[in-house]
Amino acid sequence: MFVPGHPDGMLTRTPQRERSRATQLRLLEATVDCLVEHGWSGTTTTLIAQKAGVSRGAQLHHYPTKAALVLAAVEHLAQRRAEEIRAEALRLPPGRIDQVIDLLASAFTGPLYVAALEVWVAGRTEPELRQALEPLEARVGRDLYRLTVDLLGADDSRPPVREAVQATLDLLRGLGVANLLSDDSARRQTIIAGWTRQLAAVLDPRP
Amino acid sequence: MFVPGHPDGMLTRTPQRERSRATQLRLLEATVDCLVEHGWSGTTTTLIAQKAGVSRGAQLHHYPTKAALVLAAVEHLAQRRAEEIRAEALRLPPGRIDQVIDLLASAFTGPLYVAALEVWVAGRTEPELRQALEPLEARVGRDLYRLTVDLLGADDSRPPVREAVQATLDLLRGLGVANLLSDDSARRQTIIAGWTRQLAAVLDPRP
Repeated sequence: MFVPGHPDGMLTRTPQRERSRATQLRLLEATVDCLVEHGWSGTTTTLIAQKAGVSRGAQLHHYPTKAALVLAAVEHLAQRRAEEIRAEALRLPPGRIDQVIDLLASAFTGPLYVAALEVWVAGRTEPELRQALEPLEARVGRDLYRLTVDLLGADDSRPPVREAVQATLDLLRGLGVANLLSDDSARRQTIIAGWTRQLAAVLDPRP
Repeated sequence: MFVPGHPDGMLTRTPQRERSRATQLRLLEATVDCLVEHGWSGTTTTLIAQKAGVSRGAQLHHYPTKAALVLAAVEHLAQRRAEEIRAEALRLPPGRIDQVIDLLASAFTGPLYVAALEVWVAGRTEPELRQALEPLEARVGRDLYRLTVDLLGADDSRPPVREAVQATLDLLRGLGVANLLSDDSARRQTIIAGWTRQLAAVLDPRP
C-alpha cells in the first residue's frame, strides 16, 4: 500500500490537513489499482472509495467525479514514479545508459502506464475527459522528457539528441502497448539493447 | 464505403455466396467505424448491424457476438491495410526508406490502429477476449514485420537488421499512442526523419 495504515490510537492525534492528504493519497492509489484490475468501464467512484477504505462522503468531498479521480491519480502517480526513477538512477554507476533506459522501460510496462492507457483510450471518445487530458499529457510528457535528459546527462541543445531522447520515449510507449496482453519482456530486452547502442552513439558528442 | 452499393436490379442476380461475403465485409467495416466513433464500451452488435445496413438476423448468422465481430474485423482490416500499403509501396522509387516508413506510420495513426487499441485495451481485462486476441496479435505482428522487411528490401538474416525493423514498428506503435488525443503529426515527422537516418545506417551492409 502507498499510505501505510495508522494504528487506531494515532489517528486522533494526526492534524486534520495531514489526515485529508492521507485520504486523498489512498483514493488516488485505489483509482490506479481499480483501472488496472477492472479497466475504464469497470472503474466506478463507489468501487474506488471501497477499495481505498474511505467513506463515499469523503470521496465526494475530495474528488467529486470519476474524471476528477483519474486525472488526479494519473498526475500524482506519474510524479511519484518519476521521483522513484530519479532516486533509483542516483544509485547507478555514471554513464550506464542501458540501466537508465531499463529503469524508464519499467515505467512503461508497469501499472501506471496500463492505467494511463485506459484513461487515454477512454478520453478519445469522451470529449470532456479528452479536454482535461490534453494539458495533462503535455505536462507529463514534458516532465518525462526532462527527467530522461537529466538521467542520461544528455546535451539536448543539439537537435539529434533531442530527437533521439524523444524517440526513446516513443519506443518505450510502443513497447508498453506490445506488452499489454502478454509478457513481451524477452523480445523487449533485445530491442532495447539494440536501440541503446544507437542512442549512445547519438549522445556521444565526439565526431 | 468499402462495399459499393448495388443497384437493386443486380442484387437478385448476385450469387448467394457473393452476397454473404458482401454482408460480412459491410459488418466488419461497420465494426471498425463503430469502435473509432464510440469506443469499445459504446460498441454494440445492434449498432454495428444498423450502421452496416444489415438485419439483426443476418448479423447474428455471420458473427454471433461482439467478440466475433471485433476479432474478424481487426484481422480482415489489418490484411486489407497491408495489401494497400504493399500496393502503394510498389509506386515508390526504389530505396526510399523514408517514404516506406511514412506509409507504415500512416497505418499506426489511422482508424484501424485506433480500433485495434480499443480492442487490445478491453482485452486486457476481459479474459475470453484476451485469449482470442493473443494468437491474432502474434499473426498480425508477424505479417506486419514480414511486410516491413519486404518493403525495405532488408536482409533480416543479420540480427541488428531484425531488431531495427522490430524497433521501428514499436516506435510507430508508440507514436500512434502519442497521437490518440491530439494531432501529433509535426513532432512525429521530426522523430521519424531522425529515426529513418539511423535505420538506413543499420540496413546498409557496407562496413
